Amino acid sequence: MGSVTGSVDLAGCEWLQYDYGAARMARGRPGLFTMWRYRELLPIPDGPVRYPVPIGGTPLLHAPALRQTLGTPYLWIKDETRNPSASNKDRATALVIEDGLRRGVETITTASTGNAAVATAFGAAAAGMRAVIFVSTDCLPEKLALMTQAGAWVFQVREGYAAAVDLSRAAARTFGWLDRNTGANPFTIEAKKTVAFEVWEQLGRRLPDVMIVPVGDGPTLVALDKGFTELVSCGLTTRQPRLIGVQAERCQPLVRAWLDEPTRPAELDPTATIADGIAVLRPAIGDAVLEVVRRDGGAMVSVTDDALLSAVATLAGRAGVGAEPAGAAALAGLEKAIEHDLINRTETIVLLVTGREVKAGQATYDPSRVTVVETLDEVERALTF
Amino acid sequence: MGSVTGSVDLAGCEWLQYDYGAARMARGRPGLFTMWRYRELLPIPDGPVRYPVPIGGTPLLHAPALRQTLGTPYLWIKDETRNPSASNKDRATALVIEDGLRRGVETITTASTGNAAVATAFGAAAAGMRAVIFVSTDCLPEKLALMTQAGAWVFQVREGYAAAVDLSRAAARTFGWLDRNTGANPFTIEAKKTVAFEVWEQLGRRLPDVMIVPVGDGPTLVALDKGFTELVSCGLTTRQPRLIGVQAERCQPLVRAWLDEPTRPAELDPTATIADGIAVLRPAIGDAVLEVVRRDGGAMVSVTDDALLSAVATLAGRAGVGAEPAGAAALAGLEKAIEHDLINRTETIVLLVTGREVKAGQATYDPSRVTVVETLDEVERALTF
Ligand SMILES: Cc1ncc(COP(=O)(O)O)c(C=O)c1O
Ligand SMILES: Cc1ncc(COP(=O)(O)O)c(C=O)c1O
Repeated sequence: MGSVTGSVDLAGCEWLQYDYGAARMARGRPGLFTMWRYRELLPIPDGPVRYPVPIGGTPLLHAPALRQTLGTPYLWIKDETRNPSASNKDRATALVIEDGLRRGVETITTASTGNAAVATAFGAAAAGMRAVIFVSTDCLPEKLALMTQAGAWVFQVREGYAAAVDLSRAAARTFGWLDRNTGANPFTIEAKKTVAFEVWEQLGRRLPDVMIVPVGDGPTLVALDKGFTELVSCGLTTRQPRLIGVQAERCQPLVRAWLDEPTRPAELDPTATIADGIAVLRPAIGDAVLEVVRRDGGAMVSVTDDALLSAVATLAGRAGVGAEPAGAAALAGLEKAIEHDLINRTETIVLLVTGREVKAGQATYDPSRVTVVETLDEVERALTF
Repeated sequence: MGSVTGSVDLAGCEWLQYDYGAARMARGRPGLFTMWRYRELLPIPDGPVRYPVPIGGTPLLHAPALRQTLGTPYLWIKDETRNPSASNKDRATALVIEDGLRRGVETITTASTGNAAVATAFGAAAAGMRAVIFVSTDCLPEKLALMTQAGAWVFQVREGYAAAVDLSRAAARTFGWLDRNTGANPFTIEAKKTVAFEVWEQLGRRLPDVMIVPVGDGPTLVALDKGFTELVSCGLTTRQPRLIGVQAERCQPLVRAWLDEPTRPAELDPTATIADGIAVLRPAIGDAVLEVVRRDGGAMVSVTDDALLSAVATLAGRAGVGAEPAGAAALAGLEKAIEHDLINRTETIVLLVTGREVKAGQATYDPSRVTVVETLDEVERALTF
């Protein structure tokens, strides 16, 4: 196999030669592994998938160097940064848009501080749909640049993220747009549960003992539980892995609720942590997170910003996986969980790495697509499409 | 398929329900589509692949919205930004490292201004190998941050990129390291030729009429030609697509050589264009580029920085594909080629989108891993591993 028979020179460049023949090329079409593999458990009817970009089917890495460093021989990384906009948000975006394409809806809206907005803007662009994003006025200009570069319409809301969610949802109802707000549209959970199916298949139809997951609004963790629950419902397995949710020390409402302890103000400051993706003051489906973690025998842990930065460096340096701080939270959480005897090093452990920052390149944001609004009327007047 | 039977409430969160059963889950393992599919035409012997991260098997997008905008009904995008470090450089890195893992070599070196260095640093980290990167002293701090974050050792060379290449190659020879310098190691071409095989398979074992490709040192384009040539050698096809190479107007040595015209100084200024990835003054295998483009009936075109920025925006806004300016050059080149009657809009056209910038997150570079050197002796003294 692959034996080189010699080489020729092409204008100073060396070309290796082989014993050529039709049999050298694999037969059969290369398999495409995407989240649509699980369509029998997704809320879309038969017929060809219309969403034009492959989503999901992300690698489960065995990370040999990281295993050695940590002394965790059965550790795996589920690398969600390999999705098109480099985060797990692409799954929810794709399912919501797939549904819209089938129903002829032409506009999608969401409120978000970051990755969900970028995923929505790029996903809508790919599908030829309009995206209308609501953000807080303190959203970073480079994130705005990514959104407007992909052609999204952005509304900035002075009252902050919660008000942005309200306005986005009201706009969806009033104008008949697709509502991709996390926790609001059950399709976001349906899409993200496919991660559980993939992990199970990638482990050879076996479950890990424990899976560690960053928690912001909650859908990522709750969706994993739903996926594992459905494997049980299908009679394909009898138990579920423990889920360990990770929050940043400076914004850890669910960890304190889990421990049944009062939260100090310094632990409820979303702007104080570098883990912006998971810094949510009032998680949209926080109660569901607590419920499933309890049921699975899991736990909630908090990690410091230093631990997050060190997790980012360790993922890059020992697994070759680039992640943003919130995206690397599972690794920081693993170290904390081992310390607290919540995990044994020899268990089968899966870290969910959720996201990586991408760049808008040289682009700055297009001010003609960004408007500050307070009311739905102002939204309607500002829309020029 | 996928019919929802109802929904339950979980602590305020809506869970859709299905008619569960083992048959809901696809049988058989999900297919893994990577460049190792083509190992019979790669220079590695039998035995399991050791490189621990899946590489290649990137999507060929039919980009419906972009097709409509451009009036090109058979346009495709080969999206190499879906590789782990977001560029086509990951293929070459993986093959060189695979070879090293089999031979027990523990260190890999390359000189590079950007993506190849990042790919090498992350790839080496994944494989538990050391990476030693040589860059010019004017390499951007954020690129250094990515390299040192992945644990690479970086040497800055005052005399610039060409001197960095010389030093990297000398170090490889002297210390027995893997030499991943583009154009120097034929394995880089071997790896990148798999893009041609993938495109052919993804089009249903058919070839496009024309493929458009950014050109820096040349291996990306020359490797595509080699891949298509090998399909002919295997008796699997009889003709080759035309290859159109794209350079930036401000650094277009190969375009002028192709046109047999003198190059003005303003057209040889690598620092003047935003397309840093393809701004190479003396392309390592430029002669081979000219030779294969001539043979294929292709051409070389140059594009302005404005056209590159506009291509970045169009790829984001009409295809949902994020790219850096050099990575988007094929789209800018398409527009130029249509203008010059080099391409007909109804041909089957594949744009190779080669790269996207990634971020090091909050990290700055680790100065303890970055040293300015002039000689191999200084390199040896500075190495602390
Ligand atoms: C990188 C990253 N990780 C994790 C999460 C948490 O996801 P969830 O809101 O589903 O809990 C987010 C949410 O934005 C995120 O951006
Ligand atoms: C984004 C991007 N595109 C294209 C190229 C051109 O590749 P080659 O040097 O193989 O011609 C490079 C090379 O660095 C690159 O970084």
